[in-house]
Amino acid sequence: MLPQTVVSSASKEVVIGPDRPFVVIGERINPTGRKALAAEMKAGDYSRVEADAIAQVEAGATMLDVNAGIPLADEPAILAKSIELVQSITDVPLAIDSSIVAALEAGLAVYKGKALLNSVTGEEERLESVLPLVKKHSCAVVAISNDDSGISQDLEVRFQVAKKIVERAEDHGIPRCDVLVDPLAMPIGAIGTAGKQVLQLVARLRDELGVNSTCGASNLSFGLPNRKDLNTTFVAMAAGAGLTSAIVNPLHPEMMTGIRAANVVNATDKDCMGWITACRAAAPSDAGARRNGRRDRSKKS
Amino acid sequence: MLPQTVVSSASKEVVIGPDRPFVVIGERINPTGRKALAAEMKAGDYSRVEADAIAQVEAGATMLDVNAGIPLADEPAILAKSIELVQSITDVPLAIDSSIVAALEAGLAVYKGKALLNSVTGEEERLESVLPLVKKHSCAVVAISNDDSGISQDLEVRFQVAKKIVERAEDHGIPRCDVLVDPLAMPIGAIGTAGKQVLQLVARLRDELGVNSTCGASNLSFGLPNRKDLNTTFVAMAAGAGLTSAIVNPLHPEMMTGIRAANVVNATDKDCMGWITACRAAAPSDAGARRNGRRDRSKKS
Repeated sequence: MLPQTVVSSASKEVVIGPDRPFVVIGERINPTGRKALAAEMKAGDYSRVEADAIAQVEAGATMLDVNAGIPLADEPAILAKSIELVQSITDVPLAIDSSIVAALEAGLAVYKGKALLNSVTGEEERLESVLPLVKKHSCAVVAISNDDSGISQDLEVRFQVAKKIVERAEDHGIPRCDVLVDPLAMPIGAIGTAGKQVLQLVARLRDELGVNSTCGASNLSFGLPNRKDLNTTFVAMAAGAGLTSAIVNPLHPEMMTGIRAANVVNATDKDCMGWITACRAAAPSDAGARRNGRRDRSKKS
Repeated sequence: MLPQTVVSSASKEVVIGPDRPFVVIGERINPTGRKALAAEMKAGDYSRVEADAIAQVEAGATMLDVNAGIPLADEPAILAKSIELVQSITDVPLAIDSSIVAALEAGLAVYKGKALLNSVTGEEERLESVLPLVKKHSCAVVAISNDDSGISQDLEVRFQVAKKIVERAEDHGIPRCDVLVDPLAMPIGAIGTAGKQVLQLVARLRDELGVNSTCGASNLSFGLPNRKDLNTTFVAMAAGAGLTSAIVNPLHPEMMTGIRAANVVNATDKDCMGWITACRAAAPSDAGARRNGRRDRSKKS
């Protein structure tokens, strides 16, 4: 049985799973490292949040991550406000993203639908504070495979941490289909095997734990040049290995093209219609010609 | 033990294997569907062969495929001539590509080094005519997983055909490390699971048969728009699943970028030096800035 994770907004349901198109979770609504956005959100100006929400959905995001992690600000209030706003202008399900439990709680309190809570880790305190929230609101949750001992470079340890979280969730009455494990993409510039680790872990998560997965993908390329192309290739390769969703920047066209191509290769884009439609939208007159092979043939010499 | 396939020219050795950078076999020297090239080669004009050889190596091809399949032409003579010419101007190992045994033989007769013979299939007649050549010349060979009953859509049948070829090669005294299995990328526009089949097969080829793999990748996107990006993503995903080489067009920069990124993710690009070097070559002033993260930071808002 393939795992299926259902999340929703007030009006729209999204199913995450190996036999579904890859779920793109837009990463942009996050003040971390975005000074202007942080200052605006803190001052009650949500115009950029609004613009980022609309732009990401237009670019093809299936879901949006909403984070309000601003130092010395009232994160629970700002997160709740952001979620209400984003839900009022888009219909995609959201990931409520915070490291502060009170903020997760405030976000859940205003959320309409079945949210994705981002995140719980294998740390004892975090497990016992976040999982009751997940159960109470019947939402889904991202499980990051680190624990009180930190982030292990040992694949087996990371897998065991994921297993512990999934089992603890079940102890709390949360079905494993509602747990999306994040195998943790470390910066590959520092840890050369970081990408390979993810490819190996996602397959095990699906086959041995029977859970779906997600991944904050952009971290992988930290410190390296041409991050867009590297992130794109990584996400496609991980999708091939079994990754079912990722938190990425949908405003990079390379990324959306790579993910659409991965759907074609993974046979989750029925009759390649997502691919063909996107190609036509990108180059209306061109796509038809190439589709019929005419352009390719005329160029041969 | 990871499989290692060694091929060589007179002066250069290339090792194909899961722990090695992906081997790019340039596909351009092939008159199939290239009328001008076919006419020139038939008339004894090899200027385009020469230009294609140099351009592909400059673009980063690790090996070159050489094919002289021209209707009503003296294919053995033209293939031998092409191989001699290409070996006189480049130092990369070559794949000698023909469906005519006499042409393979003529190519091998002039080849300097350990060639890759392209190809043998699981068809009885082909097995018994090509494998003795492989043994005689101690070369490596591409094994295409179809047989007398055609190309099966059943993955298990394709795997068994590959297994039969590998075992028959051993009967002829050819070690399995010298057999590169081509899992056969069918057009995904016609067979929706064609990409997924390849991803599943390459992993089994490596894990269960202990052999390396290669793939004529461009066929996958036949009839679909934006073939370059689709081919690129497919090759990267297949590399993630275990594909160790592919016959592709290295003159598409997308393809080379995708393969270099796949090497980073697969941890076969030590310290990411191949990636960083290629980025610097593409944008000398830019790559440094981005490498230090400055550009990314300044763009955040």
